[in-house]
Amino acid sequence: MKRYEFSQEAKAGVYQVIRERRDIRAQFLDTPIEDDVLERLLTAAHQAPSVGFMQPWNFILVRDQGVKVKVHQGFKQATEEAANMFAGERREQYKTFKLEGILESPLNICITCDRTRSGKVVIGRTANPSMDLYSVVCAVQNLWLAARAEGIGVGWVSIIHDDDIRSALNIPEHIIPIAYLCVGYVSHFPERPELETAGWLPRRKLEELIFFDQWGRKD
Amino acid sequence: MKRYEFSQEAKAGVYQVIRERRDIRAQFLDTPIEDDVLERLLTAAHQAPSVGFMQPWNFILVRDQGVKVKVHQGFKQATEEAANMFAGERREQYKTFKLEGILESPLNICITCDRTRSGKVVIGRTANPSMDLYSVVCAVQNLWLAARAEGIGVGWVSIIHDDDIRSALNIPEHIIPIAYLCVGYVSHFPERPELETAGWLPRRKLEELIFFDQWGRKD
Repeated sequence: MKRYEFSQEAKAGVYQVIRERRDIRAQFLDTPIEDDVLERLLTAAHQAPSVGFMQPWNFILVRDQGVKVKVHQGFKQATEEAANMFAGERREQYKTFKLEGILESPLNICITCDRTRSGKVVIGRTANPSMDLYSVVCAVQNLWLAARAEGIGVGWVSIIHDDDIRSALNIPEHIIPIAYLCVGYVSHFPERPELETAGWLPRRKLEELIFFDQWGRKD
Repeated sequence: MKRYEFSQEAKAGVYQVIRERRDIRAQFLDTPIEDDVLERLLTAAHQAPSVGFMQPWNFILVRDQGVKVKVHQGFKQATEEAANMFAGERREQYKTFKLEGILESPLNICITCDRTRSGKVVIGRTANPSMDLYSVVCAVQNLWLAARAEGIGVGWVSIIHDDDIRSALNIPEHIIPIAYLCVGYVSHFPERPELETAGWLPRRKLEELIFFDQWGRKD
């Protein structure tokens, strides 16, 4: 065993959660999430890496049905726009997918990025201005994984315009909504991603995605 | 215990890895990473969520010293530019930080995003065009966490311009380099983020970052 390597049980938990995490849209139960569990999930998000240690995230916990309905209206408009971007059979198939669980999940969480949080110049954001956005995505992924370990499903609703999220949650213009998440216990976790099961796109082979030293080099 | 909740040991592993993951710059050993371990890390990345199941990532494994030197030159130029953006004491403190381990780590991994991978219209990317970039960040975070469980450190080098990464690795113009990672076993994992220890910025209190139903609402 390597120094600093986790115990077999702990490692197995890490790989299990990475393997079994799913994007949940249709399986939410209305069982409320206990306060201590929610605190663990938010703590996990807050322990994400952040560029220049700026911790640019906020967490808006949405339980109010009126607010959820407004967000859901934004989704409905955006998904209608989206359907029209597909042609023929793809459009019909798109319309059959359940793509969010805003109203059914007991808790929605909007995770945002405050790009102004620690001044204009941030260590690590100078050459790549997207790094603060990426830090918040790491926080989303931490929360998503922790939730799965608790038996809680998370679905990321991306089919909605930022301004509709801002308007429903009264978020200032300079704050970027990164993820709008539906969160709750579930009837089950699907074995595979739903778009894979539906035959929308195949799972790619890992080995085809790996290059050596240069783009495209396979040996 | 909730249905679908992980065992106590597995859950503890998940929370341990989230808590103990660090951005590593200065602690790399030259111990090579075994092939089976590397395959587990890349598999973990490949199991990340991806918008519309597009799996837009590639992994370029860099071990060639000449390539690393080119990347390092890009870093040196970008960090000089960055230092000049800070004033006075902050600039002097910036210059004391070790911000990458490109040459010392036995393996560098560049994780990229191919925005064209599954056609122009992607489910879930229609209203938010950044979603494919965010999917790749989730893959980065998965790899980062799996590495920590294996006792392997990862450092994200963000102080480099995309075009310098492209040029060193021969990456086509339409591919976005999301993360350039330094990867290797380490002499130790710091207890806290280095910028926190150095007093650059304080750890924020989680409760200050949480709102209810609306931006800014605290109850």
